[in-house]
Amino acid sequence: MHSPNLVFGPGIYRSDFAESMSMSNLENLQSASTGTSEETEILMAQRRGTPAAPASTSKPARTTKAGSKPTEKAAMTDIQSSRDPRNVAIDRVGVKDVVYPLTLRTKDGNSQTTVATINMYVALPHHQKGTHMSRFLEVLNQQTQNGPITPQQIPDVAHAIKERLNAETAFFEASFTYFVNKKAPVTGTEGLMDYRVTFECTTNGTTDFLMEVSAPAASLCPCSKEISEYGAHNQRCRIEAKVRMDGVLWIEDLVTILEEAASCAVFAVLKRPDEKYVTEAAYDNPKFVEDIIRDLAVALEREKRVTSYEISSENFESIHNHNAYAMITRDKRKKK
Amino acid sequence: MHSPNLVFGPGIYRSDFAESMSMSNLENLQSASTGTSEETEILMAQRRGTPAAPASTSKPARTTKAGSKPTEKAAMTDIQSSRDPRNVAIDRVGVKDVVYPLTLRTKDGNSQTTVATINMYVALPHHQKGTHMSRFLEVLNQQTQNGPITPQQIPDVAHAIKERLNAETAFFEASFTYFVNKKAPVTGTEGLMDYRVTFECTTNGTTDFLMEVSAPAASLCPCSKEISEYGAHNQRCRIEAKVRMDGVLWIEDLVTILEEAASCAVFAVLKRPDEKYVTEAAYDNPKFVEDIIRDLAVALEREKRVTSYEISSENFESIHNHNAYAMITRDKRKKK
Amino acid sequence: MHSPNLVFGPGIYRSDFAESMSMSNLENLQSASTGTSEETEILMAQRRGTPAAPASTSKPARTTKAGSKPTEKAAMTDIQSSRDPRNVAIDRVGVKDVVYPLTLRTKDGNSQTTVATINMYVALPHHQKGTHMSRFLEVLNQQTQNGPITPQQIPDVAHAIKERLNAETAFFEASFTYFVNKKAPVTGTEGLMDYRVTFECTTNGTTDFLMEVSAPAASLCPCSKEISEYGAHNQRCRIEAKVRMDGVLWIEDLVTILEEAASCAVFAVLKRPDEKYVTEAAYDNPKFVEDIIRDLAVALEREKRVTSYEISSENFESIHNHNAYAMITRDKRKKK
Amino acid sequence: MHSPNLVFGPGIYRSDFAESMSMSNLENLQSASTGTSEETEILMAQRRGTPAAPASTSKPARTTKAGSKPTEKAAMTDIQSSRDPRNVAIDRVGVKDVVYPLTLRTKDGNSQTTVATINMYVALPHHQKGTHMSRFLEVLNQQTQNGPITPQQIPDVAHAIKERLNAETAFFEASFTYFVNKKAPVTGTEGLMDYRVTFECTTNGTTDFLMEVSAPAASLCPCSKEISEYGAHNQRCRIEAKVRMDGVLWIEDLVTILEEAASCAVFAVLKRPDEKYVTEAAYDNPKFVEDIIRDLAVALEREKRVTSYEISSENFESIHNHNAYAMITRDKRKKK
Repeated sequence: MHSPNLVFGPGIYRSDFAESMSMSNLENLQSASTGTSEETEILMAQRRGTPAAPASTSKPARTTKAGSKPTEKAAMTDIQSSRDPRNVAIDRVGVKDVVYPLTLRTKDGNSQTTVATINMYVALPHHQKGTHMSRFLEVLNQQTQNGPITPQQIPDVAHAIKERLNAETAFFEASFTYFVNKKAPVTGTEGLMDYRVTFECTTNGTTDFLMEVSAPAASLCPCSKEISEYGAHNQRCRIEAKVRMDGVLWIEDLVTILEEAASCAVFAVLKRPDEKYVTEAAYDNPKFVEDIIRDLAVALEREKRVTSYEISSENFESIHNHNAYAMITRDKRKKK
Repeated sequence: MHSPNLVFGPGIYRSDFAESMSMSNLENLQSASTGTSEETEILMAQRRGTPAAPASTSKPARTTKAGSKPTEKAAMTDIQSSRDPRNVAIDRVGVKDVVYPLTLRTKDGNSQTTVATINMYVALPHHQKGTHMSRFLEVLNQQTQNGPITPQQIPDVAHAIKERLNAETAFFEASFTYFVNKKAPVTGTEGLMDYRVTFECTTNGTTDFLMEVSAPAASLCPCSKEISEYGAHNQRCRIEAKVRMDGVLWIEDLVTILEEAASCAVFAVLKRPDEKYVTEAAYDNPKFVEDIIRDLAVALEREKRVTSYEISSENFESIHNHNAYAMITRDKRKKK
Repeated sequence: MHSPNLVFGPGIYRSDFAESMSMSNLENLQSASTGTSEETEILMAQRRGTPAAPASTSKPARTTKAGSKPTEKAAMTDIQSSRDPRNVAIDRVGVKDVVYPLTLRTKDGNSQTTVATINMYVALPHHQKGTHMSRFLEVLNQQTQNGPITPQQIPDVAHAIKERLNAETAFFEASFTYFVNKKAPVTGTEGLMDYRVTFECTTNGTTDFLMEVSAPAASLCPCSKEISEYGAHNQRCRIEAKVRMDGVLWIEDLVTILEEAASCAVFAVLKRPDEKYVTEAAYDNPKFVEDIIRDLAVALEREKRVTSYEISSENFESIHNHNAYAMITRDKRKKK
Repeated sequence: MHSPNLVFGPGIYRSDFAESMSMSNLENLQSASTGTSEETEILMAQRRGTPAAPASTSKPARTTKAGSKPTEKAAMTDIQSSRDPRNVAIDRVGVKDVVYPLTLRTKDGNSQTTVATINMYVALPHHQKGTHMSRFLEVLNQQTQNGPITPQQIPDVAHAIKERLNAETAFFEASFTYFVNKKAPVTGTEGLMDYRVTFECTTNGTTDFLMEVSAPAASLCPCSKEISEYGAHNQRCRIEAKVRMDGVLWIEDLVTILEEAASCAVFAVLKRPDEKYVTEAAYDNPKFVEDIIRDLAVALEREKRVTSYEISSENFESIHNHNAYAMITRDKRKKK
């Protein structure tokens, strides 16, 4: 840059940069640009007089003058795009723990908005120095504005990342709370139960999509029941399944399968008749952590829409300060 | 209960309990009831033939017969309402870590839906054995269905708990992620920034309401800048303020105050011109954790709508594996 | 500094700085120094030829030359010690989440080493710009090398911080896992139970010391037991007490008080006769969260060595995905 | 059981069960026993008059009489050993999140005691109903009393689990804080740095052992440095490597490799000359998360003792509220 007062840099932030920038200079900037649409957008915004440096919620104080470095994107060094000599390809690189709202289509035809923690990665070939981190966020911004999405639409998000980042493989992961309206077993009192759900999607031509649901439930110990005169220790447990699917499987469907593997489901609201019911139901249905995981495996073997599964149950034992845990991983596609 | 076929107990769950219940017996149940509206609702539902034990997402297996205990609420012992002999009043008792959706009115006139972790408590007088935990959830269910709420409406929720639980004092706490659309400082690229917000409300005739906002930001060390030839260590920090208010203070307002106390704000999306800007802005504005907390104190002393504050900053030092931390608590009402 | 080659700065790190430093120059350094013992130590180490910049586990690469800034401590600006104009005193400032080993004297006369997360703060007067963060770590280093400490010796650590930081008030907090060897109730099989303990100490002439112990235990619901034909929902709970003491109260003593307030204690190892025992014991001793907290309050009222307490119990309900919670705060000194 | 006064059950707990038990009855018990050494031990303890139900730290209240169920282990049903009809083998079942002290041999020939979170599992064949959870704890108790262990001895622990649980495959995982004494780069001031370490061991005839070390460090952004007039954003990062080894690789060795991949290491104590040093060192050594992970991959490719690695770096960006992340997985054994 020849002339610092032509640019929208720190020196003139908060002031009248739009006026100080002549059209002819802007033209120069554009011809120097790499011509990507995003740079054009910024320049167009400037031409329109739109404040590119808007009244943000917090305007950091600036006291120094602009110096010797270029201040518009087209002229800045793009280190990330340079060539890397180490000959090491990177499996996954990108942004992690991005907190973002996500609106999901529910099984009953409505939608719900939740807060997701999102990871977005690409595979980086050995010759490229770095990826462009800000583009992940731009894709997310666009994708989450398209209205409620279903589990089945998640591969589109992964595909959009792959395209925007110009990568051969892209990964999208989102973990969030999902609410299901659940009626108490006797009085029918309604309340929202919260489940943890994770979508994991990899796309590189073919697409691999995994859905994980984690449901709290109750387990009651068969040994404790058998050896005791009365009572039986029971506790909250957490049952999880990460599945590959063939066909439409709703989060609600997987929740039902998980809860049926427990001694009893848990509920948001229970009146006394409900509490009597779940107490007796759990006592009538004692299960070791081994029983829960096996009954879940049997159910998922039967479920045609599930082609592979990774399942676990963790029981927060009420007689110990440690937990009982079991897990099974099976790929039904490899069984024949 | 004399006759197991009159009740909607486990033995007839999933079947035709409505038919098996004669009107005359229902009348008896009602006269034995304490007459609260909720019990009447259940009985009315039964009378209408509505399934009080609906097809929930998971129906626990039941194998045993109904026994000697009553199965309708009106006849069940209400231990919680009995008299406690220990002469110990309880400051707070209730439900903790309830995960629930919350819809909030935003400053720009829109609304946003988020996921809150909610605690609801009451003070329990010394003579009462226990509180009724399920009622907290019923209140929450009702209150969160009334459409978007503003920080200023939270006391209504606390008041509703107090009334429904028949308590002298009620507490309501909700922590949630709140999104603010934020433009990058130079290119104006938009992205959602996530903040952690907590409402704490106590009501017992008078109402006390506290709003806490926690904002991530950047801090740059003045000592490191001063003593080094070039560069200066900087890092993400987390600045928090819990305030009492007199007048309408939006979450967005407090976010702005918090971010202005840092070396520089952080952003969701930064293109290269923005990254240059924030790098230089932080270097131009070095701050110890002591400076951040003092500048924040000065700002909150000036802010007429804030009457007391508890503030802290925690800097996740990039040169250590531990953090720098500072905090100040002031009640402006007590100063004169 | 006049001559960069006389100093132990980055330019000569890893090499022969001891030889390159003449005695006469060192003398000048010393006379310029503020004369504190720590600076002298460094200089003395240099004089002795001891490598002040030793072969650390990781030597960051350095490529640039020394420049215009002083490289020895005595000549560097001490910004922290400068005067602050904002007129804002800081309640607490220091280091947070320092992970450090701690060796504790146990009640049975032995000692145990654990890993603590430690916070150390001082109050900073309004006129002082900043505190000296590295000194907190130096104190910790010294104090934790003095052999096993008892809860009763913690005030000495706080006092050492106060002296070293030249502050009017100092705060020391340490949270750690504490193990107690516990025998199963029937078979006597031994196993280590883990408890969370926190020490909080404030010293400013007088000393205030708080000990918090958090014990896992089991709670069994009296309502569920009363209304059900068989069984009763039970779950792990977490009972906590933060107490002020008059006299020697061991962690082990407080653990016993906490566990006796529950329906039953939990254990590290339980063989079948033990499991039968704890199942029946919990069923025989049903307690609401209200009962646990009241029984604990009654016990602490009786305990002469406790002068104030903040107690809570949180039950991880096996029939819900949220928790039941109760808390009481009492200062026995204010009661008369 | 015919006679409740012959047994060491709840009815006579705390009293004189030893006297109430006649030798002839004990003989019968023994002959009915499965003859394992642990049952014999209990009975022997009773015969000696040793309290099998000792004065534990908390003695749960018992009010009911002994009933119709056997109270000695030999006569109790062992449900776990029964046959399971579901034909589902379980990959891993056992105990999770056991908190236990662990003493480790350090590279300098000393030892250190830390607190570990431990998981222990076995593979369960399809025909066996359940595993015996208490035995995992018994093995742990024995193994951790054998004095300090080295990473190289961990397979012995896994092997002991396999034998005691009579399993074909056993898994042992332990995560803990490990301290390394580290000198500041200029002044040589010493302080303890904390690293997170995990051992994972699988044994089923052959043994597979993985060691994971997670080290905090600093990263400084090359793009920010390049495009800015002065300064560069930097932040704490967390670099991790999980490796398979051929030969002796100490935790300390892997820490060094990890820290050398960063822009600069972090330290427990830094005096001003040290702070100047690390500030400039990081500025002289800017690295994207991609550079860190690639330099680490290059170092581990060179390191003969490492045969496979899973590495990641997560940078807690000081300009965003989300993190930059990269990972690579390589098995050197498969490369030829």
